[in-house]
Amino acid sequence: MKQHQVTIKDIAKELELSVSTVSRALKNHPDIGSETKRLVQEKARQLKYEPNLMALGLRKNKSNTIGVIIPEIVHHFFSSVISGIEDIAYDRGYNVMVCQSNETFEREVMNAQALLSNRVDGVLVSISKTTFNFDHFRNFIDQGIPIVFFDRICPDIITDRVIIDDEVGAFLAVEHLIRIGCKKIVHFAAPQNLLIAQGRLAGYQRALRQYNIPYDPHFVLHCDSRELALEKTIPFFNIHPEVDGLFAVNDSTAIAVMQILNKLGKQVPKDVAVVGFGDGPNALIAVPSLTTIEQKGYEIGTEAVSFLFDKIEKENNSENFQTKVIFPTLVKRDSTKRN
Amino acid sequence: MKQHQVTIKDIAKELELSVSTVSRALKNHPDIGSETKRLVQEKARQLKYEPNLMALGLRKNKSNTIGVIIPEIVHHFFSSVISGIEDIAYDRGYNVMVCQSNETFEREVMNAQALLSNRVDGVLVSISKTTFNFDHFRNFIDQGIPIVFFDRICPDIITDRVIIDDEVGAFLAVEHLIRIGCKKIVHFAAPQNLLIAQGRLAGYQRALRQYNIPYDPHFVLHCDSRELALEKTIPFFNIHPEVDGLFAVNDSTAIAVMQILNKLGKQVPKDVAVVGFGDGPNALIAVPSLTTIEQKGYEIGTEAVSFLFDKIEKENNSENFQTKVIFPTLVKRDSTKRN
Repeated sequence: MKQHQVTIKDIAKELELSVSTVSRALKNHPDIGSETKRLVQEKARQLKYEPNLMALGLRKNKSNTIGVIIPEIVHHFFSSVISGIEDIAYDRGYNVMVCQSNETFEREVMNAQALLSNRVDGVLVSISKTTFNFDHFRNFIDQGIPIVFFDRICPDIITDRVIIDDEVGAFLAVEHLIRIGCKKIVHFAAPQNLLIAQGRLAGYQRALRQYNIPYDPHFVLHCDSRELALEKTIPFFNIHPEVDGLFAVNDSTAIAVMQILNKLGKQVPKDVAVVGFGDGPNALIAVPSLTTIEQKGYEIGTEAVSFLFDKIEKENNSENFQTKVIFPTLVKRDSTKRN
Repeated sequence: MKQHQVTIKDIAKELELSVSTVSRALKNHPDIGSETKRLVQEKARQLKYEPNLMALGLRKNKSNTIGVIIPEIVHHFFSSVISGIEDIAYDRGYNVMVCQSNETFEREVMNAQALLSNRVDGVLVSISKTTFNFDHFRNFIDQGIPIVFFDRICPDIITDRVIIDDEVGAFLAVEHLIRIGCKKIVHFAAPQNLLIAQGRLAGYQRALRQYNIPYDPHFVLHCDSRELALEKTIPFFNIHPEVDGLFAVNDSTAIAVMQILNKLGKQVPKDVAVVGFGDGPNALIAVPSLTTIEQKGYEIGTEAVSFLFDKIEKENNSENFQTKVIFPTLVKRDSTKRN
């Protein structure tokens, strides 16, 4: 006798709930209360319910798995991208496997080889800072596996891409400092061999130009980490006490600078207004809370995975590749609030 | 004619560097300066060097891949665990694939199925809060694939385990509050159906008992997130203005409480000393910096993956399973510094 496979309907019937409520409770959906979730899980355990993966959309000759290669999982931006990718992928019945290159070429090559031999249906990649050869990505294309680059793209391989406009983000940050009255604005920048560093410096320069503020190269400092900020902030402000605005290339540098300015007896935002870039959770915890640029990681993830599904599911293997540009936005907080 | 495969030795010879320097430069090792890394990468690109994955230790009939299933990548603790796992695994020539269950039973089942069909050599798992059935993990054991649980273990499956002693961590936190002079110590706790919540409450109670401070159940509050802290801190301190010490079940709750106490005109640590649990990067950014309990995520990762390699490589399929208990430590900072 064939055993009855317990479904979501059985759970719904026993609990007198709708099927959609049970389904969302099992997916840990935020709209469902914790008591309902507990009841549904209890009943599911009692009935020995198992999700029917076939019903989740598995297809023949597919691994129903997407691979993601990123430099660093711990980075708030990349974890937001992963959330965006997963929310779309799991809804379509695809599993997501994440590999971390740790900014290392060798690991990135291993990541690519492993995903290739696991026959993933598609790959999403943000390349490591130290990658100098792109053959490990060409292997995917040679085997007909679609690839989409996001944020840190591979210039040599033409495929779908999702990028963020760093120049616009930096422009918004510096324009905001100018509008609240800053006249002497310094930029704590990343090394200029990185594309993001170039874009953010260009946005800083354009804002100065547009508002007729002279550009002074001494006001651009290589300082892109908490450690460098602890080392360079005091000597810089000793030489340039007139500085009244600061745009840092990332939030952690901006927050460290604010802590040091506080020790120097300079008030943020009254004496020096500060803007960061990234909008991670630290921006809210900082004192004062940090005005910053939202990088839209979640949106980048959903756009990138949507491009990938266009290629995987529609078997759209045309050479018709698109680049989607995401525009970051300014988030105003206390570090630039002057009354 | 067989083409010469470029090796690390060729790069070392051309640059007049040692083989080990080149190897570490390609691995992005922190001991190697950025200028040397740049030179090595430049030369590697010029010579079209490709890492020889066979030399990295690939073995026959192995996928040389380890799967990891965790609830949340964004969580500092889990990203530390992943770093520990990866540092050992890549050194041994294994790739690491990470799947995120997002605290959802359904995704966790999909994660397990995908890793199983990708024939990983072993799995490391921290289970989702909502998992009520463990058959998807039993499938690994049935197929002879070793599995190690860490932090959130599966009580029904006997295998190697790495756990953290939450009770000891909480005891250290509360003992420290008592030693600096706190008499009325409140515990902002997580729901008691979670094992970590039970352990941390038990440590709080043991510390009070050991120092002859009466236990008052009104001093244990369900408050384990920034949101709940924003809602519950003011009403609680209005009723209990005598409270002079607070132990929160995690750092984000502790930091939110400090921000609210500041608005209430209570000084931390003078009026109320605060200890968190976790030691994520926010603990350093908080004002004042937060005394907290270090959860040793990196060590948990290295221990768990070492257990796994014992089973994978030594083909040690005995039923001789071990449980390793990691003891957390107290990190003293300004939120408990009373002169």
